[in-house]
This record gives sequence, structure tokens and C-alpha cells, in this order.
Amino acid sequence: MATITKQVKSHGGDVYFLSHESTSTNTTMVFTLFVPSSPLDGPNMPVLYYLSGLTCTNMNFIEKANAIAAAAQHGVVLICPDTSPRGEGVPDAPEDMPCKWDFGQGAGFYVDATEPTYAANYQMYSYITKELPLVVASTLDAVQVGNRVDMGRASIFGHSMGGHGALMIALKNPGMYKSASAFAPICNPSSGSCPWGDKCFGLYLGSLEAGKAYDATVLAQAYNGAPIDVLVDQGTADNFLPTQLETDKFNQAANTNAKINATVRMQEGYDHSYYFISTFAAEHVAFHSERLQ
Amino acid sequence: MATITKQVKSHGGDVYFLSHESTSTNTTMVFTLFVPSSPLDGPNMPVLYYLSGLTCTNMNFIEKANAIAAAAQHGVVLICPDTSPRGEGVPDAPEDMPCKWDFGQGAGFYVDATEPTYAANYQMYSYITKELPLVVASTLDAVQVGNRVDMGRASIFGHSMGGHGALMIALKNPGMYKSASAFAPICNPSSGSCPWGDKCFGLYLGSLEAGKAYDATVLAQAYNGAPIDVLVDQGTADNFLPTQLETDKFNQAANTNAKINATVRMQEGYDHSYYFISTFAAEHVAFHSERLQ
Repeated sequence: MATITKQVKSHGGDVYFLSHESTSTNTTMVFTLFVPSSPLDGPNMPVLYYLSGLTCTNMNFIEKANAIAAAAQHGVVLICPDTSPRGEGVPDAPEDMPCKWDFGQGAGFYVDATEPTYAANYQMYSYITKELPLVVASTLDAVQVGNRVDMGRASIFGHSMGGHGALMIALKNPGMYKSASAFAPICNPSSGSCPWGDKCFGLYLGSLEAGKAYDATVLAQAYNGAPIDVLVDQGTADNFLPTQLETDKFNQAANTNAKINATVRMQEGYDHSYYFISTFAAEHVAFHSERLQ
Repeated sequence: MATITKQVKSHGGDVYFLSHESTSTNTTMVFTLFVPSSPLDGPNMPVLYYLSGLTCTNMNFIEKANAIAAAAQHGVVLICPDTSPRGEGVPDAPEDMPCKWDFGQGAGFYVDATEPTYAANYQMYSYITKELPLVVASTLDAVQVGNRVDMGRASIFGHSMGGHGALMIALKNPGMYKSASAFAPICNPSSGSCPWGDKCFGLYLGSLEAGKAYDATVLAQAYNGAPIDVLVDQGTADNFLPTQLETDKFNQAANTNAKINATVRMQEGYDHSYYFISTFAAEHVAFHSERLQ
């Protein structure tokens, strides 16, 4: 289980700040939980994973997204992991990389790195899909709320790099998540026309070709699992829309696959920030809650 | 008018980040506005000032309080000033002060300093009550929403030092604000049993005695203006409650004055943070909105 570094009451429930030694990343990982209060006995509360974007941490969504209110209202546990392994011994962006904020620490891209420099620590796909659920479950047991939570009813959402992570992880694991949604996701990072994807897939996986196994649009084309509902919100004033996000490509792939029921909404005048996310977060929590109950 | 340094869409409205040369503080001051969209013509939107606490800025409330959603829903303009003058030439805490975060920059206490060291810049009372409303009005005119806002319908709220500021400013200016509210306010800083008050009134005003003119509890005892509704929320797990806040003293003073209709709510288990504020901010916005319509 994880160690509670802080616990704060909010919206009638509890926010837990947690830390644990990860066997996936070989580092100390932190994450944040919001556990609503519940008047009911029994495992009535589902869980909702939120994956943050480049440069973000386990804190941005909890602090800025206006999501705790919605999670409290719907009785949904929020699970907010960090965006990468971190620490002094963890390799970061190469010294000679001109722009460093979008690679390495804070930018794990939710893949399992295979390149030798990064493979020992950057195992964020395994961390999110395999280790984190077990750590969360044991932590909830330890704080004596495990009996109110049903870890088997899970959905996933995220923002930008984490929006891609949420779509990709849901489509790679049919049935594991009831629904997936994203705010301003990177949609097709192995396209060759997404500089963030070029950089991250190249350095973590060795090639864009290897990145196809982790690409939400590629996965949406081939998806043949249980039917899944997907919601995407994308601001039209988002600076990254013209150069990185390729929303149309995911929209087309998802909407030509009968197994995916995708709604992609272009939101007039919104940018890439938490001012945008906070506007629509309550709707996303409600979207997942409906599918989780 | 102020210069717009950034404008972001949120919850259907606009967040403006502003900067201007203040004649009160002789510094560049920053503030943040949220202007809801409004389907109606005419000056239908009232304004609501929010005063932040020690170490905070014009950003904490806008980013973390979950208040934009409520302001958008109720059609209320939010005005969030900074907590003090700032900058290289602005005197800060004395060099030999052992603890510096609760005095000087970020800690203007919303008074007009009279002591020579601080008097040239620390004129936050005049700034909030006289200069800021004019700057906001001219700014709203400049961005062509002035005709939708009624600056004459105003209320005020705040947190901790700013909660005190809100109560104090409302009680010192009968009729100027329709209502006042506070999250975890410092209540009686001239009591002699509030270390923050000892420090700030001593150094800005020269004595605790001089601080009585700016003390919300003292003002509540003597208040003889138009009847005013006041709401206070105070967490029972707030670390500062036993040593600084003196909630009971304000409660008693306000509730023995027939001109003040004060509701003081002790909120079980909540601390002093924005996790507490965000829980109740929507109720405070609704409280003011009712009195402003």
C-alpha cells in the first residue's frame, strides 16, 4: 500500500496525497485520490482514473479542474497519478535537446519504454494499467473505505498527453474501462505529423512504427472489443490544435468503427488550459458516472 | 484603465488578467476578472470582490476555488485583486523578522499604512475601496462589457486575511456592499491575542490601538449603518483557528448588533485551504447573488 503524506477534507469527502515505491518504475511514485463520502454500505462507488498532460503532476486536476464537486455529487472515486517517474536518478531529456519540457520527467506518455536509456524507469503503461489499481485497492482497504469502492467498475479520462493516454489505454484493454474521455487529446502521435509523438515514441520506443501499438487513432481503427462510449472535448482556440492534436483523425477512425460510440465536440473559443478543462470536467464526470452505475 | 495581459474563455465567459499603474500604491498592480456571458441587454450583472489571504495573489481564487462555475451560473462578475503592492522598490518584512511570510509583500492586510516605511505603497484599503472600482469600470468599458455590468451593485468576500478584509471593508462602508462573507476570516486582529494582527497593525499603523479602526469585530460592535447580511464559514480542523482567528468574538459582536444579520457556520473537519474554500464557494456566490439581484 501507499503512504498517506496528507489528507484533507473537501466536498464532504477526503483527498488523500499518497506516495509509494513503484515496482514498475523503480522510483517513488506519488498519486492523489478523492474519496467521496457515501451514505450507503457496500461497494457502491466506482473509480475514475485521470491522466494529466505534459509538465503536469498528480495535483493539477485535483486543484484546478472543478472535478471534486462533480465526483462528490456522483459518488465516484477519482484517481490521479503523476505523469512520469521522477527523481535524481531518473534519466530526463537528453542534454542537447533544444526544448526539454515535453520529454522525460513530466512527460512519460503512458508507454512502456524499450530504449535502454529509459526502459528501467519509464514504464508508465504498466504502472497505470497493472500496478496502480492494486496500490489504490490496498490503500483504500488500509483507510477502511475499500468496502465502499468497486475497483472493477472503472473508467478513464485525461488531458492532452493524458487524454491520449486515456483513449489509448481504454482501446488497448477492451472491457477494462466502461468509458473513456479526453480534453484536448493528442490523437495520432505516430502519424509522423505530430512533433510530440515523433519525439516521445522515437526516444522511448526507438521508432514511430513501434509507437503504433500505443496510438489511439491506430487502435481505434482496429478496435474489436466490447462496445465502448467515448467523449472528446476540443477547444477551437487551442494553440496546439493545428500542430499536434489531429482531432479529426481520431474522430474519423472512431466514427467508422461500429464498436466505438464516439462524440467529439469542438468547443468554440476554448484553449488548452485548465480554464477549458474546468468548464467541462463536471460533464465528463457525469458521462462516466452514467456508464459506471 | 488596465492593460489586458491575457484573456481566456471559461464557463462561457471570459477571464481577464490585468495590470495597471496604481496611484494608491505607487506600483504596478495586477488583478483578475471573470465576466460571465449574458444573454440580456442592459446592466444586469452585479460585481463581487474577492480578497485573498496571506501569501496569496489575484490567482488563487480564480484557479482553485471552483467559483467561476457559480459566478457564470448566477451572472455575477468576479473581481480578484492582489494582496499587496509588490516589486523591487517596495519595502517588505524587516530583515531581522524571524518569520516573514505573514507580513509585507503578499500581506497588505487591506489597510492604509501610516508608518513611514510602508505608507508610500501599502495603501490597500484605498486601493480596494476607491481606486479598483474605477479601474474595473473603465476596463469593462474598454472591453465593451461595461454596459452589461452594474458596478453599483457590489458585494465582497474573502479568505483569512482577506476574509477579515471583506468584513472590515463592508462594515466600514455601510451601503457600499449589499452583503459580505468570509472563509476562515481573521476576526479580531486588534485583540492583542492575534499574532498576525499584532505584527501587521504594529508595523503598518504603529499600534494595535490604531488597528481598531480596521478591526471587523470592533466595527461590528459599533456598526450603525444599513442592515447587512453576513455569512462566515469556518473549518473546525483549521490549524489557525485556536491561535489567530477568534471566530467567536466576531460572532458575538455581530449577533448582538441588530443591524447585522450574521450566520457563522462551523464546518466539521475542514482546514484552512482551498479544498475547504472550493467546497463552500458556490454557496457564498449564491448567497451574494440573492442579495445583489
